[in-house]
Amino acid sequence: MAVKLETLDTTLRDGAQSARISFSCADKIRIIGLLDELGIDFVEIGASDTADVDFFAQAKGLKLCHAKLTAFGSTCRAEEKAEESTGLQNLLDCNTEWCTVFGKAWDLHVTDVLRTTFEENLRMISESIRFLVQNGKKVIFDAEHFYDGYKSNPSYAVEVIQTAERAGASVCVLCDTNGGCFPDEVFDITKEATENVGIKVGIHAHNDGGMAVSNSVFAVSGGARHVQGTLNGIGERCGNANLATVMANLQLKRGFEIIPADKMKNLTHTARAVAETANITTRNLPYISRQAFLHKAGTHIDGVLKNHESFEHISPGAVGNERNFLVSGMAGRSALVEKINQFKPSLDKDSPEIQGILEEVKELESQGFQYDAADASLELVIKKALGIFKKHFDINLCRLIDEHDSEKNQAYSSVLFKVLVKGREETTAADSDGPVHAMDIALRSALHKFYPSLRSMRLSDYKVRVLNNEQATGSKIRVLIETTDGGQTWTTIGVSVNIIEASLAALVDSIEYKLNKGE
Amino acid sequence: MAVKLETLDTTLRDGAQSARISFSCADKIRIIGLLDELGIDFVEIGASDTADVDFFAQAKGLKLCHAKLTAFGSTCRAEEKAEESTGLQNLLDCNTEWCTVFGKAWDLHVTDVLRTTFEENLRMISESIRFLVQNGKKVIFDAEHFYDGYKSNPSYAVEVIQTAERAGASVCVLCDTNGGCFPDEVFDITKEATENVGIKVGIHAHNDGGMAVSNSVFAVSGGARHVQGTLNGIGERCGNANLATVMANLQLKRGFEIIPADKMKNLTHTARAVAETANITTRNLPYISRQAFLHKAGTHIDGVLKNHESFEHISPGAVGNERNFLVSGMAGRSALVEKINQFKPSLDKDSPEIQGILEEVKELESQGFQYDAADASLELVIKKALGIFKKHFDINLCRLIDEHDSEKNQAYSSVLFKVLVKGREETTAADSDGPVHAMDIALRSALHKFYPSLRSMRLSDYKVRVLNNEQATGSKIRVLIETTDGGQTWTTIGVSVNIIEASLAALVDSIEYKLNKGE
Repeated sequence: MAVKLETLDTTLRDGAQSARISFSCADKIRIIGLLDELGIDFVEIGASDTADVDFFAQAKGLKLCHAKLTAFGSTCRAEEKAEESTGLQNLLDCNTEWCTVFGKAWDLHVTDVLRTTFEENLRMISESIRFLVQNGKKVIFDAEHFYDGYKSNPSYAVEVIQTAERAGASVCVLCDTNGGCFPDEVFDITKEATENVGIKVGIHAHNDGGMAVSNSVFAVSGGARHVQGTLNGIGERCGNANLATVMANLQLKRGFEIIPADKMKNLTHTARAVAETANITTRNLPYISRQAFLHKAGTHIDGVLKNHESFEHISPGAVGNERNFLVSGMAGRSALVEKINQFKPSLDKDSPEIQGILEEVKELESQGFQYDAADASLELVIKKALGIFKKHFDINLCRLIDEHDSEKNQAYSSVLFKVLVKGREETTAADSDGPVHAMDIALRSALHKFYPSLRSMRLSDYKVRVLNNEQATGSKIRVLIETTDGGQTWTTIGVSVNIIEASLAALVDSIEYKLNKGE
Repeated sequence: MAVKLETLDTTLRDGAQSARISFSCADKIRIIGLLDELGIDFVEIGASDTADVDFFAQAKGLKLCHAKLTAFGSTCRAEEKAEESTGLQNLLDCNTEWCTVFGKAWDLHVTDVLRTTFEENLRMISESIRFLVQNGKKVIFDAEHFYDGYKSNPSYAVEVIQTAERAGASVCVLCDTNGGCFPDEVFDITKEATENVGIKVGIHAHNDGGMAVSNSVFAVSGGARHVQGTLNGIGERCGNANLATVMANLQLKRGFEIIPADKMKNLTHTARAVAETANITTRNLPYISRQAFLHKAGTHIDGVLKNHESFEHISPGAVGNERNFLVSGMAGRSALVEKINQFKPSLDKDSPEIQGILEEVKELESQGFQYDAADASLELVIKKALGIFKKHFDINLCRLIDEHDSEKNQAYSSVLFKVLVKGREETTAADSDGPVHAMDIALRSALHKFYPSLRSMRLSDYKVRVLNNEQATGSKIRVLIETTDGGQTWTTIGVSVNIIEASLAALVDSIEYKLNKGE
């Protein structure tokens, strides 16, 4: 019988402490739905001011299948009665069944930050929890800095969590707030803590030493049965433990029961959708990113084709992800053949068609194209060679004017396109503060009425790389554009000594990819 | 007496397996210099083809203070004699004192990927190492998939590394190639391995379970004394262990001697410079990123101001990083004061002038300027603030036309400048195949006759970096231009949502820097 672990996602609370990330109300509602669907037990949301309380009023109408919202706030202050604390009153006003409050478990924080006595800190914790419990709440207590506190003054740290238990907390969470602990320390101290309280113990780890995932895993080995984290590991400084990674590690490899087995296949989709909402990329994150099962080295591709296990620690499908091969030079030859076979399964790897495409890709790569990342542009190269590409438009003219006028203190780009589409030449133009943005707007405005499906497209990433830097401003420039239509995401490439031309080529590929998919 | 750990950086070999990353020869030379300066013991570079061998010929001229280059390749193939292997011959041709070869330590790989016998696999390893040693090389043996191999067939995995030892390898590196092991397994298996060989044992970990750093740390606890990784954790799939994080964890917190104590302050600079060269961001990476000690939550800022230890696991200065609050990203405050004092030695660091410049730089950095690399632009900011900057020209108008005409099959940029110089408005224009090149030609042709010293200037490097990628084509763009006049080399910066404007700003700074130097 598998041991059950409880999960608490704090993407919307601690995750929102990440520099550059903030969530709108609509973002929060969307993410709560995704987490509920995945089977997360608790979704934590900040409740420090009246705006937060208003959000909970709005969230009240949500129909959740499984997840419970928990409102997060601090205990009453030093010398403040619990019933007079506006913070605690806010928590009550959120009208959730569950609340999380945090209190200090490190003597240094009591003396140097709160600047109060050890006894007063215990009173604040005890009274605050009692007040919430008396008002009908179930309470999760976050013992902030528990590990650093235990290392500094073990008996006081233990007294803090015992105080929380006596006051009526249901769960006591041990926090590595500064994120600098090692897994072996976390194991030992968690074990000690679980032996000293009767309630469920949790782990909340930060990643300042790059070990938040391991620390969470080792806390569970030490007896923790409640795990906190954020999706994609966002959070203050170096971030929180990545909850998706922790869940996959513990459920797929250590046999814990965290979410229903069939839900694990939603992990990739959920993490990517949250990243999309947070407006971040999942880059090379474990388990759920596009790179996680993407093979580039020739020997690896060869190995995976013979036996997937040879270079994959799990089956990508177990978390709803997919295996991918990069086609880089001749290294990815067999991967390229496999990709071509998706369109013409009948072609043998020695056929002239396949040999021709291999030659063409090699030639393009020698010009600076790199199809590692630009899967969509590669697909167009293949479709063109196989004669199954349909061209939807031609750009007859693109004229960009970029003007910097010191007298008017103005800088702007305007672009004019003449686009031949379905036999008609459309002329469109657009202005913007940058040339690529202006091109994107103008080109799509010429095409929208002919191809309404393009309305769902949005450029989600833009990267520029200068090849052969040494030739300075005469260098070749490689542009990668990532596009999403809400469901799928694809990347296209353009290479030129002219950055405008390279960007335009990648834009055109992006649109043609979408239109060719739709056929 | 601290225990010494050896480091091997494989950024240029395994790191280059990362999707989207590739290094030019100049990039490699630069990174080797940075790693040497940091005190890394070995720098590993791929040696699989003749292009690689040519690179080593070029690298031969490098004066390295400490680091040794090691050429990486595979053993001979099944049924192939070592002396007939072109791969091994390439390794010899690299003319390095050290080589790394990898061999299979997992029975599944021998049967399913190599499709040979256990004995033949041992012969390939043994003969290859012997061949290299007989030809005067010192050999690092990477036991690929050692941990998965040990879990599957412990006695065969151990036989593989014992074979390498007997054949004359100096170091035997245990690889978690698929990156899915747990720290406790890594500890146990490493301990077992070190008890079964007499040579130095190393660790090479991948991050597919998000635990590569912990796995490296636990391998060292288990007896490994050689640690491999990449800067910023780049590498195939989810990446390699981040060597910077592993080094800081083990040296600052576990007392190992990895690099000289005073070099640890270079860690941040080195990791960031490598990231710049690879054209990636350091995001929120532990220890070395801007976010690593950046405090956003009000309670955290309050705590840090009362006692830094309250929300910082180490002192940021220990790795050459800086504490930051909110968006303030000013690196090297004291370095900046020192630079200002070059121009006005009399200024005290608390003087209003210095405080004003610090504020201005902070403001510019929050807009995306970064002066770590752009020394010349920083000098102009300082000179302007101190009233010792002389403006040599004004750009009244810059009008760029970039045209892509499919009928004429032409793409070109033309630019028109109106430049006010010594009281006269000069109008010049130029054509080129790219916009930045055209601007460079036109602008300097307007200025040459007034300032003949500009004739010696030549742009030697041009880098483009998209900040906040997620905003796609509306993103801010940072341009760095390196200029040389034969004697000196300097770098300037421009930031804008408009790449043309950012490039122009960097060009203008580059020229003004030269002219201000000449006064």
